[in-house]
Amino acid sequence: MVDDGAVQLTFTKGHGTQNDFVLVPDPDGELDLRPEQVARLADRHAGIGADGVIRVVRTAAAPEVADQAESAEWFMDYRNADGSAAEMCGNGVRVFVRYLLREGLVPPGTTALQVATRAGTKRVRVDGDQIAADLGAWKVVGGAAALAAGGDAKVLVHGLDGAVAGLSLDVGNPHTVVVLPDAADLASLDLRRPPQVDPEPPNGTNVELVVVLQAGHVRMRVHERGVGETRSCGTGAAAAALAARAWTSVAGGGEVDVWRVDVPGGSLRVSLLPDGTVELAGPAELVADGTVTV
Amino acid sequence: MVDDGAVQLTFTKGHGTQNDFVLVPDPDGELDLRPEQVARLADRHAGIGADGVIRVVRTAAAPEVADQAESAEWFMDYRNADGSAAEMCGNGVRVFVRYLLREGLVPPGTTALQVATRAGTKRVRVDGDQIAADLGAWKVVGGAAALAAGGDAKVLVHGLDGAVAGLSLDVGNPHTVVVLPDAADLASLDLRRPPQVDPEPPNGTNVELVVVLQAGHVRMRVHERGVGETRSCGTGAAAAALAARAWTSVAGGGEVDVWRVDVPGGSLRVSLLPDGTVELAGPAELVADGTVTV
Repeated sequence: MVDDGAVQLTFTKGHGTQNDFVLVPDPDGELDLRPEQVARLADRHAGIGADGVIRVVRTAAAPEVADQAESAEWFMDYRNADGSAAEMCGNGVRVFVRYLLREGLVPPGTTALQVATRAGTKRVRVDGDQIAADLGAWKVVGGAAALAAGGDAKVLVHGLDGAVAGLSLDVGNPHTVVVLPDAADLASLDLRRPPQVDPEPPNGTNVELVVVLQAGHVRMRVHERGVGETRSCGTGAAAAALAARAWTSVAGGGEVDVWRVDVPGGSLRVSLLPDGTVELAGPAELVADGTVTV
Repeated sequence: MVDDGAVQLTFTKGHGTQNDFVLVPDPDGELDLRPEQVARLADRHAGIGADGVIRVVRTAAAPEVADQAESAEWFMDYRNADGSAAEMCGNGVRVFVRYLLREGLVPPGTTALQVATRAGTKRVRVDGDQIAADLGAWKVVGGAAALAAGGDAKVLVHGLDGAVAGLSLDVGNPHTVVVLPDAADLASLDLRRPPQVDPEPPNGTNVELVVVLQAGHVRMRVHERGVGETRSCGTGAAAAALAARAWTSVAGGGEVDVWRVDVPGGSLRVSLLPDGTVELAGPAELVADGTVTV
């Protein structure tokens, strides 16, 4: 404790394919985590550092999601690194469930559970060392016409000559997927500067640069809006696989429903579920535990 | 413990003006920290994350610096984020001493001590909430001729029109200092790409971009070789102050021996000591403690 209102918090740090999070246990909803405290936790130099901060709280103790208390015992209170509240995070909810399992906050041997989020209740499955989260509904924004035209946007990426076609998808948040002809192009891209998307979506977009290695297997890099290049992005991996699936299908390759997506931070599996929703699976690891003053 | 040879370590995370470190206590020299474990500790996404890792070990228990055991009880075993061993780190030794004080590894009320490093024994002073480290000898590489000519290198920085003059200094490691006319220029620089220094030093150089606010007060940004822009660099702050001091003196402003250096991560004080060595002072904070598996 220091005298400027700082508090000492218990934390765990974890990641899913190097998309990383600081988790703060608060089962009974007693913490009032201010945005500046969240930002300090997520600060990679002055704090612990993470892409996001997750407060672990019982749904019944979180008034904003009290209507989900019947369906989900635990609420993933996800905050962006700048301290603002966010609706959902595909890798975040997977790491969240790993934490619930390790801490014994769900019964041992649990293989399926529901998690409350600001975007509604999410289904999560535990499959050996993989944790799979149903990301819900998705769509190709421009529909069949955009697919037939090979895309609905032009994307200028530093390190590539000329604009390339991009396809807009909505996976709860906006994505523009660009397919490149070979892996060498992917490696040489300069994503320190944001790709330029034309027409520019009103709220910006995440851009995935994808190489299809074979039907059911893509490699990608991602530029997240407002952040820059990241090691992994769950909804981005889903968008990449869904775009590759659509294009493979248009090209007569059949509809492959399970895709491996290699990102710089590891490997994810994206599956189209029978009900038409999209599921994100992959490793979720907890690496450190301790106390931090913010 | 997991079965791939991973070990659980106790750690503390600290920083000096946001130049950050993971400290690992090993008083009796029992840990064999392998480079890949150090790299994992310093990994900002898969580990804790830091600019460097510091093993805290008694000098007598560290064969490589056993010759310093008479002068210094504690050895700062500094490792770069990539796992390689490094000689010295100005902000690192300041945070190291904060840790010794908090842990009671030096007597309460200690205000001066010596620390063993691979670059020899360093003197450190404790001055209230500031910790000051003597960085030792320094020089303007090109001497009076380089100063009179306004510099000895041309530096091309993205976001500035045309090349600007740079002055080469050696503060234990190589620096090239560029003085800019106003603060607006400093803010608009693009340091995502490395500045180009001509002639290029054989082992590269750190580049400091400096605005002199008044005699005794500069603001700077820094591009560290092999790293990119950082929030702070101790020897870089010293080089910036020493270059500004030399130029101010050449310009008839007298020799100011104490400089405040504002970096993106905070504020440091650089002093020319009576024996001609240069001292770096500033805050040193410990923010988190815990255990980590690497």
